[in-house]
Amino acid sequence: MSGAGGKLKLYFDLMSQPSRAVVIFARVNKIPFQERQIALRKLEHLDDEFAKVNPFKRVPAMEDGDFKLLESGTIMRYLADKYLSSEQQFWYPKDIRLRSKVDEYLDWHHLNTRMNCAEYFRNRFLIPLIKQRPVDMKKLEFFRKAADKTLAEIQSYFLADRQFFLGSKVSVADLQACCEIAQLSGCGIDLASKHPELVQWMKRVREASSPHYDEATKWIYSTGTKMRHLVKEAKFDEGCSD
Amino acid sequence: MSGAGGKLKLYFDLMSQPSRAVVIFARVNKIPFQERQIALRKLEHLDDEFAKVNPFKRVPAMEDGDFKLLESGTIMRYLADKYLSSEQQFWYPKDIRLRSKVDEYLDWHHLNTRMNCAEYFRNRFLIPLIKQRPVDMKKLEFFRKAADKTLAEIQSYFLADRQFFLGSKVSVADLQACCEIAQLSGCGIDLASKHPELVQWMKRVREASSPHYDEATKWIYSTGTKMRHLVKEAKFDEGCSD
Repeated sequence: MSGAGGKLKLYFDLMSQPSRAVVIFARVNKIPFQERQIALRKLEHLDDEFAKVNPFKRVPAMEDGDFKLLESGTIMRYLADKYLSSEQQFWYPKDIRLRSKVDEYLDWHHLNTRMNCAEYFRNRFLIPLIKQRPVDMKKLEFFRKAADKTLAEIQSYFLADRQFFLGSKVSVADLQACCEIAQLSGCGIDLASKHPELVQWMKRVREASSPHYDEATKWIYSTGTKMRHLVKEAKFDEGCSD
Repeated sequence: MSGAGGKLKLYFDLMSQPSRAVVIFARVNKIPFQERQIALRKLEHLDDEFAKVNPFKRVPAMEDGDFKLLESGTIMRYLADKYLSSEQQFWYPKDIRLRSKVDEYLDWHHLNTRMNCAEYFRNRFLIPLIKQRPVDMKKLEFFRKAADKTLAEIQSYFLADRQFFLGSKVSVADLQACCEIAQLSGCGIDLASKHPELVQWMKRVREASSPHYDEATKWIYSTGTKMRHLVKEAKFDEGCSD
């Protein structure tokens, strides 16, 4: 699987949480890449052309010359090892213990932060709008509680009393977590608000990724506000207290 | 987070799929470790003592001297980088492209192989026995289909026409996948049977991990047979055709 290098291409939609993490990471670290925007709302991820890059039809995806790669955590690991200078390596440190702590969060992320926060978002807004039906309150409540437990666990275990997961420096794990947790903010729901230490930590992650974090995140606000309005107008959100 | 090394301890239950992957990996590669068996059936994972190792109360977990680590994929990455000789490094190669392909699968695993196969197992056997109620056929059917799609995707994307995910050599990604897919075998359900190439691949993973794969896996058969019998006897499996 070795081969000639080439131009780096990232396929993404800034409405997607893991897409944002990868794009913010690449921009903050000044890794040059060609932008390939795949508009989920136009179903461009279902195009045959994109299926050649990612047969699972999801964003983000990466091509580096003839090398294709999926999964946001994996793409950030690869970009860090290939493109970061030694001064930038704190994002994914070479030290085996620090690196393992980043990997530990990235593994944990999928069935905790990703699943619970994204399913809350899907059940609260996406499914009602796509299927034109009221919010399934039982499911919503399940994922609301699960997301809240996840955030408490991030606070107590991954962050504890540190500035970032690894200590004084931000890493791709912080970024991956923040982009997922922030998704509902666009719709006016602040998942972290019950956990003041998480609010402060998210602010630090945002500052450590400035101005790219804000630039990549601003798109979720206009769409999120619209989604909330449409769900409310159709009275699909009766019973929702968030 | 640096510090003095020390004796390696692995906390596991061989009934747990990710525990088996870690234990098989360590034994095949002759990494010396102290065994700390945590019997899930005796609820030992809920003990306060174990919560000091893993506050999430799940197996596997690792302690290497003063360094604690969770998540099976992360533990295997750490053990590979710390303990494998250059001849053993094919399990988690140093080459950035090969390594990224292992990471890609390990990331993908959680919300696909792990979620769908483990939920099929939970809904078909664990939940009926613990909650003493019939199988929820709607949920079972959902996860049966999802597991089948996952297996087709492993075949077409991760394995394709290769011997193992990376080509001619086994990796921790193959092992992680196989241990999860094999879980239902103990209960008499062969998830891979519809995919003959996967059956052959699983045989190769087993051979590449011999005799430790068989030794670690044999425990699922006695318990699995018993679970199937109990579910059948209580008539909780009416409507199940698997």
